[in-house]
Amino acid sequence: MLYEINEKALKLESEGKKIIRLNLGDPDMATPPEIIEAAYASMKAGKTKYSSSYGETKLRQKIAESHGVKAENVIITPGSKWAIFVTMFLMLKNGGNVIIPTPYWTAYDLIAKSFGAKTKLLRTEMETGWKVDISKLESMIDNETKMIILNNPNNPTSKAMDAKTLDEIVALANKKGITVLSDEVYGAIAFNKTKSILDYGTDSKHILSNGFSKTFTMTGWRIGYIVANKTFVDNIVKLNQITFNNVPVFIQDAALKGMELHKQIASNIKAKYKARADIASTKLKAAGFKFTAPDAPFYVFPKLDGLDGTKFCLNLLDKGVALAPGASFGDYPEHFRISLTAPDDQIEEGLDKICEAAK
Amino acid sequence: MLYEINEKALKLESEGKKIIRLNLGDPDMATPPEIIEAAYASMKAGKTKYSSSYGETKLRQKIAESHGVKAENVIITPGSKWAIFVTMFLMLKNGGNVIIPTPYWTAYDLIAKSFGAKTKLLRTEMETGWKVDISKLESMIDNETKMIILNNPNNPTSKAMDAKTLDEIVALANKKGITVLSDEVYGAIAFNKTKSILDYGTDSKHILSNGFSKTFTMTGWRIGYIVANKTFVDNIVKLNQITFNNVPVFIQDAALKGMELHKQIASNIKAKYKARADIASTKLKAAGFKFTAPDAPFYVFPKLDGLDGTKFCLNLLDKGVALAPGASFGDYPEHFRISLTAPDDQIEEGLDKICEAAK
Repeated sequence: MLYEINEKALKLESEGKKIIRLNLGDPDMATPPEIIEAAYASMKAGKTKYSSSYGETKLRQKIAESHGVKAENVIITPGSKWAIFVTMFLMLKNGGNVIIPTPYWTAYDLIAKSFGAKTKLLRTEMETGWKVDISKLESMIDNETKMIILNNPNNPTSKAMDAKTLDEIVALANKKGITVLSDEVYGAIAFNKTKSILDYGTDSKHILSNGFSKTFTMTGWRIGYIVANKTFVDNIVKLNQITFNNVPVFIQDAALKGMELHKQIASNIKAKYKARADIASTKLKAAGFKFTAPDAPFYVFPKLDGLDGTKFCLNLLDKGVALAPGASFGDYPEHFRISLTAPDDQIEEGLDKICEAAK
Repeated sequence: MLYEINEKALKLESEGKKIIRLNLGDPDMATPPEIIEAAYASMKAGKTKYSSSYGETKLRQKIAESHGVKAENVIITPGSKWAIFVTMFLMLKNGGNVIIPTPYWTAYDLIAKSFGAKTKLLRTEMETGWKVDISKLESMIDNETKMIILNNPNNPTSKAMDAKTLDEIVALANKKGITVLSDEVYGAIAFNKTKSILDYGTDSKHILSNGFSKTFTMTGWRIGYIVANKTFVDNIVKLNQITFNNVPVFIQDAALKGMELHKQIASNIKAKYKARADIASTKLKAAGFKFTAPDAPFYVFPKLDGLDGTKFCLNLLDKGVALAPGASFGDYPEHFRISLTAPDDQIEEGLDKICEAAK
């Protein structure tokens, strides 16, 4: 339903209808002008040619530096979604299964299904703070299990994993010889520092996927990256070579500029979204919704007992508010996801309509 | 060897060595400034957000118009290579084989192998003008054959297929219920008009892949497209959604500007490359190389009896000229490919070194 609602919202907008779009994690703020200027300067300097399928050396070095790894561990991708696709494709195309805690980002499941890999869903509950139950995880692992995907902080709950749980998951994965793919695309803008998969080293089999979309409001630019051991990076490049070839160099130069301005940009975003999360929390609580306090920008994943989330979202789309139904993130029919990624006045109006509809 | 030589050439350059790069179809001319300005204006107008995985409506309409089809038949991809990957993936991921005339672009084979599909290579010979033998093609088709890939005009030979042969191939494919994927990325800049797969209609199973790289010197921008029946387009969009999501809108706006300037840009390119092809033909002929006269810009695929093409190319890379060995395009060890995509003086210098080395 996630993509269907988006295409429907786009269609309604193209027909002239006003839609408050709280359905995607696409920040309303513009890409910072310094980043746009960097792209323009790069284009004019002729950076419009084919280039390396690994990505530009300067950008790889800068990313490596920010994570305390080597440039050879970094490979540039057209968005973090591609990073996840290519990682899953290489690890699962010849069979096997992947364990994914839910609620989860729809794309993991759709990606696995696109080449026939099996997914095993590990349910977590709002009532227990979306915590992964380690013994339940261990019992799900079989001989065919190749991978565990973590999304930390999580989409749709905005919950960051506590360090102890992550330690236990990594220890279990190491014991069983399983790769952890950690999608940390919300990590750099989390409200508090969150432990990363890279804190366990890069000689392991574990993999980080990350992107520039959320941190630098560069969603539509399509640039992300993978950090992994060199052997895996060298395997990925072969698939990059036969698919998209390279991320446009001027886009890589723009991302590099973003990293140079990181501190300033990321703290602006955090402050902005913390304020929005606070407003949303107040309104939703007053209307009787239950949810966990967000640890990261963008999403709230409220629940109302007995709600038909999909009907609720379709109904609100008719009223001009696009949301994502809980069923898009696993078996959570009473939930829906709100993206706090519209201008403040629209968010307030959208929240009021949501609360009104829940009466 | 194609990608290895390119990464090696990039590395040598980054170490300060001067390399005449005749190994890639990456035009030396800059992207026209009007296209760059269109991208910049689009970025500044905020076209930096997630967007439709089909591509922008305006661009799809413009492309549809240029081919005499409907916008619903067009889908935008990050380069024509992705267009080919996604088409092959959807048609062959569950098994089957694809027939590819040789010499052929390496990527077709690498793509098929990346998800375990089988390729059947249909050899054509320089001595018979690279013509496809229809009865040989028919004899290669079996129950598992899903697809024939044509590259028209061809890379590496720059040979355009005569209309009669194409008619026969399409008739045979129709009889057998097989899809023809026609990669016509050099079509718009061919020296003479070449018959297109779209001349047989879009209600068929046949598919066109095309790109902006060659026609508008936009190689590094990564934008291409597919024209197919609506059902297939709707299948592709699902894979777009879980991989790259969308081509940056500002890049689509740049491509749209390119199309508006099509006539002027394409005729400049044709004239430029026709002159280069003439110079190359004269020099190569004088040095004893055999080849067919190019019908399209960019490539010449000369042969020297008894040559070890791979050694020859590695030797020339040491001498500062990057080429592509014939073995990269099938079983053509006595050939190598020259891309006439460097500044004129470098092409002359490169050709002189090639002719010198052949003595």
